[in-house]
Amino acid sequence: MKVEIGNQGVPSEMEDGEPEVVDKPCYSPVSAAAAAVWPAREGGEELFVPPLNFAMVDNGVFRSGFPDLANFCFLQTLKLRSVLCLCPEPYPEANTEFLRSNGIRLFQFGIDGAKEPFVNIPDDTVREALKVVLDVRNHPLLIHCKRGKHRTGCLVGCLRKLQRWCLSSVFDEYQRFAAAKARVSDQRFMELFDISSLKHLPISFSCSNTS
Amino acid sequence: MKVEIGNQGVPSEMEDGEPEVVDKPCYSPVSAAAAAVWPAREGGEELFVPPLNFAMVDNGVFRSGFPDLANFCFLQTLKLRSVLCLCPEPYPEANTEFLRSNGIRLFQFGIDGAKEPFVNIPDDTVREALKVVLDVRNHPLLIHCKRGKHRTGCLVGCLRKLQRWCLSSVFDEYQRFAAAKARVSDQRFMELFDISSLKHLPISFSCSNTS
Repeated sequence: MKVEIGNQGVPSEMEDGEPEVVDKPCYSPVSAAAAAVWPAREGGEELFVPPLNFAMVDNGVFRSGFPDLANFCFLQTLKLRSVLCLCPEPYPEANTEFLRSNGIRLFQFGIDGAKEPFVNIPDDTVREALKVVLDVRNHPLLIHCKRGKHRTGCLVGCLRKLQRWCLSSVFDEYQRFAAAKARVSDQRFMELFDISSLKHLPISFSCSNTS
Repeated sequence: MKVEIGNQGVPSEMEDGEPEVVDKPCYSPVSAAAAAVWPAREGGEELFVPPLNFAMVDNGVFRSGFPDLANFCFLQTLKLRSVLCLCPEPYPEANTEFLRSNGIRLFQFGIDGAKEPFVNIPDDTVREALKVVLDVRNHPLLIHCKRGKHRTGCLVGCLRKLQRWCLSSVFDEYQRFAAAKARVSDQRFMELFDISSLKHLPISFSCSNTS
């Protein structure tokens, strides 16, 4: 069973539309000054700037910190169909415009980025976000929060549990991104997260062949 | 132009063969004791144990530390066609047997794992290894060394340069895996590595659309 994606996230009028063809520059320049700075160049050649903490999670699924103007050219190379944002704040105008002009759908599952000991990650929100991640119709998809450490790390960790990774490997991956900011509370959340209600969903990732 | 893969690495008699169908256990048990330990189980369900520092680099390309018996079940889910080992030592018998019984080809490009200040990464070896990584006929492919930090980190870093990542993002990814063991000498190697002779090779990764 696939999750119904029509009634969550931010509605998009381009749900089934083709990505718009955009000439250079690849982003919507917010200001002439910004346009002069990006994309980065070396020896006359354009260089890509992936977002903070960018990585590939599995086929069609990426993770990162909050993308900004500097990252838009790089993000275009991923040919994203969706972005899943875990921050509760309104999505910045420049990002919204980038998504719009590239036909990328935004799913927003706001989780408060509170610090320990006040962390309270809502189980249900992570579960709904996971359904979006698991739905291949949303791929290629980029998961991001602010720094790509805690909220993104927890969501990816729950995905790994669904892929039947042992907990020490889940934590190892979480810590690689969180580094000095790793939280015991996040790891406890992942450990206790109940995947049983999601097990019926098809997982077609490379690392999840359960046969 | 594609690299000729017939004259490098370790010859395999199964180059074009289909992976053998293997009943449980998924690995070739080296001993009954080991077979009783792996795969890990929780609540009667088999759990996967990815190798140390395992991650997806791009479509069809993975990286990790040296896989052992505990990781073989997980590795099977990746449906690997090749393994690229960067250690000079003879490949362990259990690993060779795992590759053989799964129809996986081994490419070995031995680079000495010396510690600073004696690090000397051979440019040519990395260049030849990169050709193997870029050849989609070898995908899905796992790059590994001992810990998945230095040699693997340098090779992936050179791949990122080919994908036109800016150097700070290349270093950021390298450091995520090397953590406290990050080496200035490795980063200097990646910075100075000349990709010009490889630019003519087709790169079909998701993050490398250069058009």
